[in-house]
Amino acid sequence: MSNQSSYTLDELAALTGAAVHGNGDIFVKEVATINHAKSDQITFLANPLYRKHLATTQAGAVILSPTDVAACPTNALISPNPYATYAHIAQLLAPPNTYTVVGIHPTAIIAKTATIAESASIGAYVVIGDNAVIENDVIIGAGSVIGAECSIGAQTLLHPNVTLYARVKLGQHIIIHSGAIIGSDGFGFANERGRWIKVPQVGAVIIGDEVEIGANTTIDRGALGDTIIEENVKIDNQVQIAHNVSIGAHTVIAGFVGIAGSTRVGRYCMIGGATCLSGHIEVCDKVVISGMAMITSSITQPGFYSSGTGFDNNARWKKNAARFKRLDELARRVHQLERVITQMTEKSLEKAE
Amino acid sequence: MSNQSSYTLDELAALTGAAVHGNGDIFVKEVATINHAKSDQITFLANPLYRKHLATTQAGAVILSPTDVAACPTNALISPNPYATYAHIAQLLAPPNTYTVVGIHPTAIIAKTATIAESASIGAYVVIGDNAVIENDVIIGAGSVIGAECSIGAQTLLHPNVTLYARVKLGQHIIIHSGAIIGSDGFGFANERGRWIKVPQVGAVIIGDEVEIGANTTIDRGALGDTIIEENVKIDNQVQIAHNVSIGAHTVIAGFVGIAGSTRVGRYCMIGGATCLSGHIEVCDKVVISGMAMITSSITQPGFYSSGTGFDNNARWKKNAARFKRLDELARRVHQLERVITQMTEKSLEKAE
Amino acid sequence: MSNQSSYTLDELAALTGAAVHGNGDIFVKEVATINHAKSDQITFLANPLYRKHLATTQAGAVILSPTDVAACPTNALISPNPYATYAHIAQLLAPPNTYTVVGIHPTAIIAKTATIAESASIGAYVVIGDNAVIENDVIIGAGSVIGAECSIGAQTLLHPNVTLYARVKLGQHIIIHSGAIIGSDGFGFANERGRWIKVPQVGAVIIGDEVEIGANTTIDRGALGDTIIEENVKIDNQVQIAHNVSIGAHTVIAGFVGIAGSTRVGRYCMIGGATCLSGHIEVCDKVVISGMAMITSSITQPGFYSSGTGFDNNARWKKNAARFKRLDELARRVHQLERVITQMTEKSLEKAE
Repeated sequence: MSNQSSYTLDELAALTGAAVHGNGDIFVKEVATINHAKSDQITFLANPLYRKHLATTQAGAVILSPTDVAACPTNALISPNPYATYAHIAQLLAPPNTYTVVGIHPTAIIAKTATIAESASIGAYVVIGDNAVIENDVIIGAGSVIGAECSIGAQTLLHPNVTLYARVKLGQHIIIHSGAIIGSDGFGFANERGRWIKVPQVGAVIIGDEVEIGANTTIDRGALGDTIIEENVKIDNQVQIAHNVSIGAHTVIAGFVGIAGSTRVGRYCMIGGATCLSGHIEVCDKVVISGMAMITSSITQPGFYSSGTGFDNNARWKKNAARFKRLDELARRVHQLERVITQMTEKSLEKAE
Repeated sequence: MSNQSSYTLDELAALTGAAVHGNGDIFVKEVATINHAKSDQITFLANPLYRKHLATTQAGAVILSPTDVAACPTNALISPNPYATYAHIAQLLAPPNTYTVVGIHPTAIIAKTATIAESASIGAYVVIGDNAVIENDVIIGAGSVIGAECSIGAQTLLHPNVTLYARVKLGQHIIIHSGAIIGSDGFGFANERGRWIKVPQVGAVIIGDEVEIGANTTIDRGALGDTIIEENVKIDNQVQIAHNVSIGAHTVIAGFVGIAGSTRVGRYCMIGGATCLSGHIEVCDKVVISGMAMITSSITQPGFYSSGTGFDNNARWKKNAARFKRLDELARRVHQLERVITQMTEKSLEKAE
Repeated sequence: MSNQSSYTLDELAALTGAAVHGNGDIFVKEVATINHAKSDQITFLANPLYRKHLATTQAGAVILSPTDVAACPTNALISPNPYATYAHIAQLLAPPNTYTVVGIHPTAIIAKTATIAESASIGAYVVIGDNAVIENDVIIGAGSVIGAECSIGAQTLLHPNVTLYARVKLGQHIIIHSGAIIGSDGFGFANERGRWIKVPQVGAVIIGDEVEIGANTTIDRGALGDTIIEENVKIDNQVQIAHNVSIGAHTVIAGFVGIAGSTRVGRYCMIGGATCLSGHIEVCDKVVISGMAMITSSITQPGFYSSGTGFDNNARWKKNAARFKRLDELARRVHQLERVITQMTEKSLEKAE
C-alpha cells in the first residue's frame, strides 16, 4: 500500500473508475462525514437519510450516485456504488499502520527453523515457533504468539497480542484483530464413569484470503479434520467458532455469534449479532439471520430468518411471558372452544332443518 | 492511595463521614462478610437478607444504617448508605496493587516521542507507541500494548495484557482489566459485486474519567467520528461496543452486553447481562433493561424493559415453543371464534325479541 | 506424558483395558476419522451415524463396542465405551506440546520470592509475581502473566497469553487456553448520589484438578470469599463466570455461557452454549440446560430445561412475535369466550329441561 498524503480528484477517479464532476484538480487528504467534511476532505452519500446534508456540505468533494449529482453543490466523484468507491478511497487515504517496523524487532524470538520473508515486519516481543512460515509484507503486532508450523500469507496483518496455536494456516491479505485466538482446542470430552476425559484436538484451522477476524474472537482447531474459513469472510469481535465448522466465502458474521461444532455455513450469508447456531447443522448459501436468533436446525432455503421476542415494558412482558409458559394449554382451550362452537352450530342447524 | 495496614474506627469515621457507635479506638485491618468477620475486621449490613447474622457477628465493627444500630452487638459505623461507606473503607483497606513497579521496567519498549510521567509505573514487556502520553501515577500492567498517539490520564490503571490501538484517549482514574481491547476497527465493509471491501475505520475512542472496563471487553474505534464512553460508566467483562456508539455518564453495563454501531445510550442506565442493542437506535436516560433482552428499537421513556421467555422443563417448553410458531394463526382463530359467538348471541337475541 | 511415535494394538489394549480383535502386532501412529483413516492410523466408531463407513474403512484398526465387532473388516479394539477408549489412545498418540521448553526461558521475569519447580517449563516473556508457586511439570506459554501469590499445581498447562491476577489457586492437570483471564475484579459498585463507587474485590479464585478453561474465558475473583470451580469441570471458550460463583465437580459449560454473581451450580450439570444464569440462584446436581436459555430462578430438580423460541422465516416470525406482545390479552379473550360459551350451554340446557 503506497499511501500518499493527498490525491487529486482526477487521480482518485482514475484509481477507482469513478467519473469526475466539477474540478478534478483539487486535492483531498482525508475522509470525513458529509456534515463535518471540510474543503480538503472527501465524503460520500450512500444512505438516503444523509441526503438532507448534501446542499450544505463543506466537503471538497462528494462521492455519490448519478442521481444525486444534480443536487451536489461541490465537486463530486460519480459512482454506481458510492459506498464501495468510498471504501477504496478511504483505504488510499488511510494513515499507514503504526505497528509497522522494518524487519524483525530485536526482541522478537523466532525459532531457527522458521522462515521469515525479508519484507515482513515482526513486532516487539513476538514469539514464532518451529517451522513457521511468514510471507512477504506480513505485519505481526507486538506480543503476538505464532505457534509451530503456522503459515501466514503475504500482506496479512496481525494486530498486537494475537495468538495462533500450532498449525494454523492463514492466507493472504487477512486482518486479525488483537486478542483473537486461532487454533485453540475444540471442546471435546468423553465421559467415563462420570468423569470427563479430554479428547485431543488434532485438526487444524485453515483461513482463506481477505478474511477479517475481530478482536477477541476465538476459532477452535478441528478435532479430526480442520476448521475452515473461506475467502473474504468477515468476522466481527468476540465471535466463537467451534471445531470443524466451515464458513463459506463472502459470508459476514457479526459480533458475539456462536457456531457450534461441525456446523457448515454457506456462502454469501449474513449472520446478525449474538445469533447462535447449533452443532452439526447446515445453513445453505445466501441465508440472512437477524440478531440473537437461535438456529437449532438446518436451513435449506435462502431467505431471512429470525427468532426471539420483542422487548416490552417489564410489567407487560412479565404477563406475556407467564402466558407463554401455558401457551400449549391455551391452544388446546381454543381447540376445545372450536369443537363446542361447531357442535352448537350443527345443533342449531339441525333444529333449523 | 496511601493505603495503611489498619485504621481505627474513629479514623474511618472521619474519612467517610460516618458516625461511631461504641469504641472508636479499636483497629480494623480488613473487610469481611458479616458471618465470617473477626475482631480485627470490619463488615457491613446493607442487604436485609443478612440482618439475621447481625446478632451473632464476631466482627470488630459493622457499617450499618441508623435503624440497625440498636440491634448491633458490637461497635458500628453508622451511615445513611452503608454499602457506599463500605466501598470507601474497603478501598482504604485494600492491599496495594501488586503490579506497581517504580518507574519504567527495563524491558518496556517506549517510543522516543512518547511522554511518560515520572510517577507512572510501566510494567515488564509493555510496548508504547509514538507520541503517546502517560500521565501521573498511571500503572500499566505487564504485556500491555499502547498504540501511537494514545493518552492515558492520571491515576489510570491498566491490568496486564491490555491492548490500546492508536489514538485512544483515556481520562483519569480509569481501570481497564486484562484482555480488554480498545480501539479495534469497527465492523465496516462495502459490498462490491458480492465481495466485501474494508471500509477503513479512522475515528477514535474517547473514554471519560472513572470508567471501569471489564476483562476481555472490546470497544471499537469510530468509522468516522469517535466512540465515546462518558465518565463513571462501569462496563463488565466481555462486553462488545461497536463503532460510533456513545454511552452516557453513570451508566452500568453488565457482562456480554452487545451494543451495535452508532447506538446512543443515555445517562444513568442499567443494562443487564447478555442484552443486545441494535445499531442506530437511542436509549434515553434512566432506562433499566433486564438480562438477555433484545432491544431492536429506540427507547424514549425511562422505565424497566425486558424480552425473552422464561425457562421451563424441556418437554413443556417444546410444546409451548411449537405453539409460538403458530401464534398468529391461534390469534386469528380466537378472533374467528369471537365473531361466531357474537353472531350466535345476536341471533339468540333476535329470537328472544 | 511419555508420548511414543507409535504403538501396537496389543500395547494400546494393555494401556486402556480394551480387547484386541485381529492382529495385535500392527502399529498405529495417529488417530483419524473412520472414512479418512489409513492403514497406520486408528479410528473409532461411537456415533451410529458413522456405522455406514465401517464396512469400507481403510483404518489399521477401529475402536468399537462388542456389538459392532462382527461387522468390522479390519483389526479392532473392543471397548464398552469406545469414545472414552479413543480419548485415552488419542492422548497417547498426540504430538507433544510445542510450547514446551526445558526450564525457564531467559526472557521470563520471575520474582525473587517465587518458587519454580525444576521440571516446569516457563515460556518466553512470561512474568511471574511475588511468592507465586509453580509446581512440577507445569508449562506456561509465552506472554502469560502470573500474579503475585498464585499457585499452579503439577502438570498444569497454560497456553500463551493467559493472565492470572494475584492469588489465583490452580490445582493439578489443569489446561487453560490462551486469552483466558482468571481473577479479574468482580463487577461490584455502590451507588452514592448517582455516582458509582468501586467495591474492592478482595476474594480469590480456586480451581480444582483436571479443570479445562477455554480461550478468552473470564473468571472473576470473589468480592469477599472466593469464586470456586471444582475438579473436572470443563469450560469452553468465552464463558463469563462472575464473582463468588461456585461450579460443582464434573459439570460441563459450553461457549458463551454467563453465570452471574454468587450463583451456585451443582455437580454433573451440562449447560448449553450462550445460556445465562442470573445471580444468587442455585442449580442442583444433574441439571441439563439447552443453549441460549435464560435461567432466572433456582432449579431444584434434576432434569432438562430450556427457554427461547424456535427460529422461523422472518415474515412469519414477525407476526408471531407481534402476537406475543399481546399474549396476555389473547389469553383473557379466550377466558371470556369460555365464559360466554358456558353461559350459552347452560341456557340451552335450561331450555332443554
